[in-house]
Amino acid sequence: MAVPAWVSLVTLGVADVPRARAFYTALGWPVAFEAGDDFCVLGTEGALVALWPTAELAADADRPGIGPDGMRSSLAINVPTEAAVDEALAAVEAAGGEITRAAHRADWGGYTGYFADPDGHAWEVAHNPGWPVDEHGRPRIG
Amino acid sequence: MAVPAWVSLVTLGVADVPRARAFYTALGWPVAFEAGDDFCVLGTEGALVALWPTAELAADADRPGIGPDGMRSSLAINVPTEAAVDEALAAVEAAGGEITRAAHRADWGGYTGYFADPDGHAWEVAHNPGWPVDEHGRPRIG
Repeated sequence: MAVPAWVSLVTLGVADVPRARAFYTALGWPVAFEAGDDFCVLGTEGALVALWPTAELAADADRPGIGPDGMRSSLAINVPTEAAVDEALAAVEAAGGEITRAAHRADWGGYTGYFADPDGHAWEVAHNPGWPVDEHGRPRIG
Repeated sequence: MAVPAWVSLVTLGVADVPRARAFYTALGWPVAFEAGDDFCVLGTEGALVALWPTAELAADADRPGIGPDGMRSSLAINVPTEAAVDEALAAVEAAGGEITRAAHRADWGGYTGYFADPDGHAWEVAHNPGWPVDEHGRPRIG
């Protein structure tokens, strides 16, 4: 399928990553990955949950977002190759989806683009060479 | 774990369920469940994706939400029993989370409550007797 039918990761825009991290780890949830005080991935089943400053999420998606707080969350489809990112975004466009940020090489070493569904919900299609994705769309971190 | 570390389902608030359904099925994504023109669950891997009118989602969560469009999305932790809903919400409260809607019997036959993380992201903890949940938090629909 050109656009894999899976949700690899949900990114929640937060005001303060350590504060959000403290809340979720107090629930007993594991941390799968983190980068300083700026980015944290919780190792949840189903979809992974990433915590990222709202302003950075909105800037990455190139969308100021809805409401005074800007973009609040995004969903990610992680794919196994860069070509799969291009293929998925082309299929989204063919289906009438809006490509809100063209595929590009990201500073974290991956290749990624964004689209919006008809209601403006933000989806990222990403290839992260450091996080191989299994056949169910789950990134293997670390 | 009192609060299972999984994302069973992401609910996207939409203006028009058939319009959103048409977009996602045009991507080739399967429909796992639907109820008229008001509710549709896409059978995605990772987390399932539900499409629901934004106003109904906001009313269900008892939160007008952020921004002019009201609440835009929620994440759900589906659990195997009603007691597990109570246990999870008690653990959330003990961890400093805000219970935004107490556990209650829902008109769709389940038992459910909501909490907010420190940034106001809405999480539902739900037991749906018609959707048995496996040990990875995935509801089996139909």
